[in-house]
Amino acid sequence: MQTAAYTGSSTIEIREIEPTEPAAGEVRIRVAYVGLCGTDLHIIHGNMDARVETPLTFGHEMSGTIDAVGSGVTGWSVGDAVTVMPLDWDGTCPACLAGNTHICQNLNFIGIDSPGALQELWNVPAETLVRIPAGTALDAAALVEPVAVAVHDVRRSELLPGQKAVVIGGGPIGVLIATVARHFGGEVAVIELDPQRRAQIEALGFTTIDPRETDQVAWVEQWTGGAGADVVFEVSGAAAAVLGATDLAKVRGTIVVVAIHPTPREINLQRVFWRELRLLGARVYQRVDFETAIELIADGVIPTELMITRVVPLAETRAAFDDLEAGRAMKILVDVAAR
Amino acid sequence: MQTAAYTGSSTIEIREIEPTEPAAGEVRIRVAYVGLCGTDLHIIHGNMDARVETPLTFGHEMSGTIDAVGSGVTGWSVGDAVTVMPLDWDGTCPACLAGNTHICQNLNFIGIDSPGALQELWNVPAETLVRIPAGTALDAAALVEPVAVAVHDVRRSELLPGQKAVVIGGGPIGVLIATVARHFGGEVAVIELDPQRRAQIEALGFTTIDPRETDQVAWVEQWTGGAGADVVFEVSGAAAAVLGATDLAKVRGTIVVVAIHPTPREINLQRVFWRELRLLGARVYQRVDFETAIELIADGVIPTELMITRVVPLAETRAAFDDLEAGRAMKILVDVAAR
Repeated sequence: MQTAAYTGSSTIEIREIEPTEPAAGEVRIRVAYVGLCGTDLHIIHGNMDARVETPLTFGHEMSGTIDAVGSGVTGWSVGDAVTVMPLDWDGTCPACLAGNTHICQNLNFIGIDSPGALQELWNVPAETLVRIPAGTALDAAALVEPVAVAVHDVRRSELLPGQKAVVIGGGPIGVLIATVARHFGGEVAVIELDPQRRAQIEALGFTTIDPRETDQVAWVEQWTGGAGADVVFEVSGAAAAVLGATDLAKVRGTIVVVAIHPTPREINLQRVFWRELRLLGARVYQRVDFETAIELIADGVIPTELMITRVVPLAETRAAFDDLEAGRAMKILVDVAAR
Repeated sequence: MQTAAYTGSSTIEIREIEPTEPAAGEVRIRVAYVGLCGTDLHIIHGNMDARVETPLTFGHEMSGTIDAVGSGVTGWSVGDAVTVMPLDWDGTCPACLAGNTHICQNLNFIGIDSPGALQELWNVPAETLVRIPAGTALDAAALVEPVAVAVHDVRRSELLPGQKAVVIGGGPIGVLIATVARHFGGEVAVIELDPQRRAQIEALGFTTIDPRETDQVAWVEQWTGGAGADVVFEVSGAAAAVLGATDLAKVRGTIVVVAIHPTPREINLQRVFWRELRLLGARVYQRVDFETAIELIADGVIPTELMITRVVPLAETRAAFDDLEAGRAMKILVDVAAR
C-alpha cells in the first residue's frame, strides 16, 4: 500500500509499504480522506525535527471505515464509518491524574509522535475511534478533528449566548471558531488581512475587519458600546496580533491563545493588569469536543463546501502544502485511495 | 495643617493648607498613619504625570479616626477608627454595570486621581470608610490596603487548600501574598534575589529560592512531584520573571499578574498553549478583600512587625522613599501628626 511520509528537509516521499494486521486492542482502518493542516506544515518545514522520527507517515485529520478488528476489541465491526481522536495519553502523569488527559505531559499525538493517517490501511488503538453517524459524507467527516479544535477553543473561552467575540485570523481554524461561537449564541467579528478570505467569511454572514483599513480598537469599542469584546481568539500566530489583542477585550474579558507562537511574544501586561484580563491557552480537544464536532457536521452547521477547497490524490500531497502555505486554500483533503 | 504633596520632578513639598469642612456625604478623618507604596514611587518619579494634577497630596494606605461627619452621613460617629477603600467609581460604565466597580473604566483612585491621605485632616466620601475593630492598633491598621491587595490576588487565583503556590518577588506585596496564600491553606515558596529579604521571609516560615543559585524550574518540578505549581504570582515586575513564570506552572495552572509592567513583556505563549495555562490580571480589591484584610490583621495573621520597618514624621517622607527604592525597607509609615 502507499503512504505519504515526511523524510526530512521539506521532503515528502510517496512510499510503498506492507500493511500489518491490527494488534490486540487495535483496529485497522481503510482510510478515506485525510485533511492537511498547519501543524503538518510545521513538520515538513523541519520545525518539529527534534520531536519526530523520520520517515514519518503523518496526517491526523481523517475519516475512513473499519477494515479489520484486532483481538479483544468490542463494539466495532468491519465497515463502520469512523474518525480518530489522535491522542494517546499515559494515564499516569500529574496532568492525567488531574483529569487533563488530553494534554498529558507525555502525550503521544498520533500522526506526529507515531504514524498517522496518510496510508491506505492504518492501525490505531480502538479507544481512539469515534463513530461517524450514517448519512454523514466521509469527506465532510474528515473535518471532525479541526472542528473539535474549534469546539474546544470556544468551550474553553466560556463564551455565553449574546456575548461578543473577535476572532483574529480567518484561516480554517479561525472560520471554524467563528462558526462554532455563533452557533453557541455569540456575535462574532473576524479580523483578517487577506481580501479573498474576508469575502469568503462575509459570505458566511460574519462581519470582517481589515485592520489596515479600520482602527480595530475603535471599531470594537463602538460595536460593544464602549465595553470591549467578551472574548478574543488569537488564531493568527502573528506578533502584532498578540500585542493588539489586549486592547480589544473588555474588563475581565478573555483572550484565548489558539495559534502556535514558536518564539516568545510581547504582550501588554499593563492592560492585562488594568482590566483584570484572562489569557487562556487552548490545545487540542477532549472527547466531548469530538462528539459535538460530529453533531455540528451532521447537522450542517459547518460550511464544509467552503472549508474543503479541493481533494487531491496522495501523490499530490507535497504540492497541496505549497498551496496551503501560499494561502491559496482553506482545507485540502487527500483521497488516500485515489491514483 | 500640613500636607505632603508631589509637585512634579521627583519633588515632595511639605505644604501648609487650611482644612475644610466635610461636604454632604463626606466625613473628615484625622489621619494617624499613612503607608508609602510602590505606586507612590511611580508618582514621584513622574511616571504618572499624564494622570495626576500637581500639587498632588498623595497617599492611599492609611488609618485614622473620624473628626467630623458631613450632613446626610449615617452610621459613623466622631472618634470611630477607620480606614478608607480609596476607590470612587462612576457606577455607569460597562465595567460597573457588569459588577466590576473596583476596576471601573473611569475609576477615581483616591490618592492618585484626587487628594490622598498625607494630610492631617482628610475629607472622603462616607461610602469609602471601612471600620477598624476595637483593639486593633492604628499603625497595624494602616496595612489594611496592601493586605487587601494580597487577599484580592489570592482570591483571584482560586488557590485551593493543599495547593502549591510560587511567589516571584519577596517585597511587601509578595510577602503579604505568601502570608495570605498560606493562611488560605496553600503551601508557598518565594523566589527573591535579595539575601536580606530572603532571611526575613524564611524567618516567617516560608521556603525561599535564590534563582541565581538554584534552578527554579527543577526545584519546583521536584517540589510538586513533576506537576508544576498550581499558582504562580508574578509580583517582581521583572521581564525575566515573566519569561520564566510559564515554566513554573502545572498543566492548567494559573499565573497571576500582580506587578506593574510599564512596557510590553515577552511571554512564552507556546508554553501557555501547550499546558493550557491561565494568566490572570489582578488589580486593587473589592470590599470583601478589605473586610478579610482587617480580620487577618486583627487576628494576628499578618506579620505587622516585619512589615513596618519604621515610622517617620511627615517631613521625612521624601527620604523614606529613597530607602524604599533602595530596598532598605519593607514598609515605612508616616505618622502624619508627628513633628
